[in-house]
Amino acid sequence: MKIKYYLKKKEKNTKARLGKIETNYGTYDTPMFMPVGTRATIKGLTPEQVKECGSGIVLANTYHLWLRPGEDIVKKAGGLHKFMNYDGPILTDSGGFQVFSLAKNKEKDITEDGVFFKSHIDGSNLFLTPEKSIEIQNKLDSDIAMSFDECPPASASYDYLKNSLERTLRWAKRGKDVHSNKNQALFGIVQGGPYKDLRKFSATETVKLDFDGYSIGGVANDGESKDDMYKAIDYSIPYLPEDKIRYLMGVGDPIDIIEGVIRGVDIFDCVLPTRIARHGQAFTRCGKINLNNSKFIEDFTPIEKSCDCYTCKHYTKGYIRHLITTKESLGGSLLSIHNIRFLIKLTEELRDAIKNDCILEYREKFIKEYSQKK
Amino acid sequence: MKIKYYLKKKEKNTKARLGKIETNYGTYDTPMFMPVGTRATIKGLTPEQVKECGSGIVLANTYHLWLRPGEDIVKKAGGLHKFMNYDGPILTDSGGFQVFSLAKNKEKDITEDGVFFKSHIDGSNLFLTPEKSIEIQNKLDSDIAMSFDECPPASASYDYLKNSLERTLRWAKRGKDVHSNKNQALFGIVQGGPYKDLRKFSATETVKLDFDGYSIGGVANDGESKDDMYKAIDYSIPYLPEDKIRYLMGVGDPIDIIEGVIRGVDIFDCVLPTRIARHGQAFTRCGKINLNNSKFIEDFTPIEKSCDCYTCKHYTKGYIRHLITTKESLGGSLLSIHNIRFLIKLTEELRDAIKNDCILEYREKFIKEYSQKK
Repeated sequence: MKIKYYLKKKEKNTKARLGKIETNYGTYDTPMFMPVGTRATIKGLTPEQVKECGSGIVLANTYHLWLRPGEDIVKKAGGLHKFMNYDGPILTDSGGFQVFSLAKNKEKDITEDGVFFKSHIDGSNLFLTPEKSIEIQNKLDSDIAMSFDECPPASASYDYLKNSLERTLRWAKRGKDVHSNKNQALFGIVQGGPYKDLRKFSATETVKLDFDGYSIGGVANDGESKDDMYKAIDYSIPYLPEDKIRYLMGVGDPIDIIEGVIRGVDIFDCVLPTRIARHGQAFTRCGKINLNNSKFIEDFTPIEKSCDCYTCKHYTKGYIRHLITTKESLGGSLLSIHNIRFLIKLTEELRDAIKNDCILEYREKFIKEYSQKK
Repeated sequence: MKIKYYLKKKEKNTKARLGKIETNYGTYDTPMFMPVGTRATIKGLTPEQVKECGSGIVLANTYHLWLRPGEDIVKKAGGLHKFMNYDGPILTDSGGFQVFSLAKNKEKDITEDGVFFKSHIDGSNLFLTPEKSIEIQNKLDSDIAMSFDECPPASASYDYLKNSLERTLRWAKRGKDVHSNKNQALFGIVQGGPYKDLRKFSATETVKLDFDGYSIGGVANDGESKDDMYKAIDYSIPYLPEDKIRYLMGVGDPIDIIEGVIRGVDIFDCVLPTRIARHGQAFTRCGKINLNNSKFIEDFTPIEKSCDCYTCKHYTKGYIRHLITTKESLGGSLLSIHNIRFLIKLTEELRDAIKNDCILEYREKFIKEYSQKK
């Protein structure tokens, strides 16, 4: 069975919506935040620890798994769920973002057929096409596969973006034509930068191809402004069908999640909570804190007294600081648990706010507290 | 309450013994293997994961905690148990071994008063005395503290060892005189290298000082032979009281644990299971295996089918190899769980063998299987 989306309720004052998705690995509510497990592991955490954070779908990266261990190995292991021991739903990206962001020396040659580039591991020559991306994802056997798209930089011109999204549309069609995994949903991706007409065109044409869900891409590149991100969402959402999931790729800043939900987005993913954790940073209701700061040496209180995560129930800032400053990996793991739970808790509260038609009040209160200087 | 040892049974054919220790954090059976949490964390594992391996006492390193975060910080946190969130018993070493093995450039000046040396972190000048070691451990509030001893290298001469152990005896007395934590047991350490008369002298004189338990030291330095280790045990044990714990420091090779138990040792500690784990190695009944080996790429079976650890219940060699070769920290954590469980399971089986008076048969069978080439 492919995952199915059910719209449960629309918030009265905004485009925010409450939904439910049915998957082969359980039923989950949206809006939802998806932790990222780049190489088939959410860095430093067991799947049980990830689930204890309240996670539903997790994301794994097609590019990384294609290179190591290779999709055929994962297939022989019985697919990604068995390979990584995660019995919840898994979404794989297309590899496109990594090809454009990670390729060695950023050397790449984009042709109609696909993208030539060099491996970020050993510099070897690689070629990724829309068909190959889907074929890899079919073998990985994730629950949701993404169409292969070009992710142009924030600095790209209108003309470049126009040509690029037209090619991305042709790539989406090619990928859909070869998609053959009956248990795997396939999502299309809307591009078009911050331009209203390009987003409209991209969304409309992508929807015509009839995907199982739609993603808003091109919002998480380096150098993109918040304003461009909100425009990309606002200009895409009106053309997406109500009965399909809407996915904002690569976004995990708490305020961006709130703004995305208000604009009609259902699911989000980002490496942010785990990446900042490994550098000693924790989300709190009053903004991010850095546990490397010496003021936490003798702070024997949890990161947040009100937090219900494993880390806050058992550990103090002083101990976590000790782990981080002595480079003990448990420090990054404990902060990852807190940060993932923080974002998942945020989506739980957003769902409540949608139920109660008070999401604008929720946003105001959250931002006021979050923007405080500690 | 200080921990208490009860001798439950002696094995019929050897010096092996079954015991029970009562602590403020539960009652545990001996022989026992103690995982090492150098900086108040068993690397990459939560305390729950360590406990799930069947652990009782865990070890933390006084030297490391003295340097970072400092014993006063740990005391302010409410002691080591609260600091690291471990509600089982904790043993702290004296710092002596690290002073002699880790000190920067091995530069150190051993005087009657104590040892001058340079920090392995920043090269700063440090001075550790028997009194200071005990004072630090009192503040850390571990359940078992160790006397500060000199750990001479395997190459030391008879005369050097004799002078050294006499000073270690004076240091033991000085440490005992300042020991003031009523809930903390204090152990003496027997030195004397592989020499029968030195071990007898050291054991006899140390026992006269009346410690809560006794450790056999000087067996885990680089370059020490197995033969020297067995001699050190054989020449020390006869002079140690039956109603006190006997602790062989720094030993974690499976065969050494068996040989130690047969010679009358009760507790062991070693970084081996966690250190080799981070390098991709796993204990098995048929010897150690290295998961970096390419033959495991498509091996979708657990490390050991018969193993009851979390790792073997949920993960394959192929997946763990993927994690290890891509430097994902979960790989080292999963292997640490398996390796710790392997040694704890070994001690469980040794306890059964003592109950059934068949430890020699157990040793023969274990060694035969363990020494097979895979």
